[in-house]
Amino acid sequence: MITNMRKPTFIVKQSLKIFCLLTGFAVMTWSFSFTKYIRGQFVNLNVLPERLKEYMYFMGRRLNGAYLSSLNKADNHDIPIIFIITPTYYRLVQKAELTRMANTLRLVKQLHWIIVEDFEVINLKTQEFFQSTGVSFTYFAQSKRSETNNHHRGADQRNAALDWIMVNHNPSMPAVIYFADDDNAYSLEIFQQMRYTKKLSMWPVGLSGGRTYETPILKDGKVIKFLAWKAEKRKFPIDMAGFALNANVLWTYKPMRFSTDADPGMLETKLLERCCTWAEIEPLADNCTKILVWHTRTEKPKVRMFDNVLEV
Amino acid sequence: MITNMRKPTFIVKQSLKIFCLLTGFAVMTWSFSFTKYIRGQFVNLNVLPERLKEYMYFMGRRLNGAYLSSLNKADNHDIPIIFIITPTYYRLVQKAELTRMANTLRLVKQLHWIIVEDFEVINLKTQEFFQSTGVSFTYFAQSKRSETNNHHRGADQRNAALDWIMVNHNPSMPAVIYFADDDNAYSLEIFQQMRYTKKLSMWPVGLSGGRTYETPILKDGKVIKFLAWKAEKRKFPIDMAGFALNANVLWTYKPMRFSTDADPGMLETKLLERCCTWAEIEPLADNCTKILVWHTRTEKPKVRMFDNVLEV
Repeated sequence: MITNMRKPTFIVKQSLKIFCLLTGFAVMTWSFSFTKYIRGQFVNLNVLPERLKEYMYFMGRRLNGAYLSSLNKADNHDIPIIFIITPTYYRLVQKAELTRMANTLRLVKQLHWIIVEDFEVINLKTQEFFQSTGVSFTYFAQSKRSETNNHHRGADQRNAALDWIMVNHNPSMPAVIYFADDDNAYSLEIFQQMRYTKKLSMWPVGLSGGRTYETPILKDGKVIKFLAWKAEKRKFPIDMAGFALNANVLWTYKPMRFSTDADPGMLETKLLERCCTWAEIEPLADNCTKILVWHTRTEKPKVRMFDNVLEV
Repeated sequence: MITNMRKPTFIVKQSLKIFCLLTGFAVMTWSFSFTKYIRGQFVNLNVLPERLKEYMYFMGRRLNGAYLSSLNKADNHDIPIIFIITPTYYRLVQKAELTRMANTLRLVKQLHWIIVEDFEVINLKTQEFFQSTGVSFTYFAQSKRSETNNHHRGADQRNAALDWIMVNHNPSMPAVIYFADDDNAYSLEIFQQMRYTKKLSMWPVGLSGGRTYETPILKDGKVIKFLAWKAEKRKFPIDMAGFALNANVLWTYKPMRFSTDADPGMLETKLLERCCTWAEIEPLADNCTKILVWHTRTEKPKVRMFDNVLEV
């Protein structure tokens, strides 16, 4: 009886030992390959799924919760300041897009660029880049807020930038707000023109809404309708890149924030309905006859080999 | 007999009459709808195939065989001039890309931009745009040359630009040549660094060749190999955006032109083999440790509604 009792216990113990040994070995192998994976060039990364690769590449970058503002708005106090609000997020072309956009913004006087990273923390390399441009800027992180139901990419980030302006800007100083995404293309003329926006200014946007352009249609200098995607259903059927607001509206029509529960395509309309009517729209770009802004998109690069020795 | 003869003639004549009338009516209807199509917004264009629509839209733009050069290279005679060679072609995002690129080039001193339109004639609107930028430039058209066998997009245009330099530039004046496509992204640093190229300089290119970056690998400041697509098969496995040449090589190693019959991916190699060895490569971008140029591509916009009242 005693020997009979011993046998199963012995087998269980031995099995457990072997199981532990095997598990330990598997974990070690896995973690070792993982370390090598993080280092990049030593393993064949092509066996891993695309999304995971990109994410791992991202995690290899230096991150930080810091917040950086280089308030150097004193180019010229006689003209209104332009606040450019740019939500951004990590992807392989992020640095390229921000570089290209910074080159454009470098040419605009009295401008402050507020860039909001859609993540928990900012990227130190991106911050260093902004510091090197010489452009007056504020860079901070704002991930999607917990109370947000619907997913509007960039809405929480833009709202955080509006919060920032209300805390940091003195409303007695003239200022204009423009929501400029980092992948669009901007002519310099549009910045010169939007600077003196009294309340709400508008202009055509090229390659937007599945058309060659979307634009307000004028009669006697007033907006009478819009040439745009779903124009009949949206009161202000215009892309984010097609309007600028005088910063005063933030104080006059509280709360001027994007509704994150807006239906798709209604983000701009829901915001502008709070403060403005069609009669108040100032048409720019020579009475909406010129295209000075293009809603361009950059292709997601087809990367098969991920090397992360250099920062892209 | 006579009445029998008459009957078929009568029928044939009547049939011919009806046929002519119907054909005439069909031709008129078709040409009328075509005219309306050219005018754009009056007909439902969605029934036409995508390519035809874009082509028709293009033909509505003003074209001309003129050639324009604004030689205003006198920013600063103490530093070498940078010749930027950009082949371009008509597509919906052309103006947006050139606008973005001009904003970058505006910030570079002592630069002359040679833009070659891949078509029979230049586009007057594009020419007007270049004139408005204030950048020193030459703009002309060069379609694919008849002797070209293989199709290398941009090769004939780049060769035409090299011809232009040999005719218009005095080789005793220091100058550098850089082939910069209009869809890439450029940091300003790379222009500062390439300006003093002795013969051939190189640096990493981000998002190129299906990798996060392609780059020369150095040992003791000399190129020993390349991290690049098909690096083993190409002597200079580098993207067009990754090197600059001192203009002198055009006179020293005649003819320095792209071989339009080169195999795919061999364009850069075949050119550089004519003049240079690995030992002569000057590594830039802090010994190839920084990415200052990105091989970005812009998405072809999904346009369903073509309006051509405004120029995109």
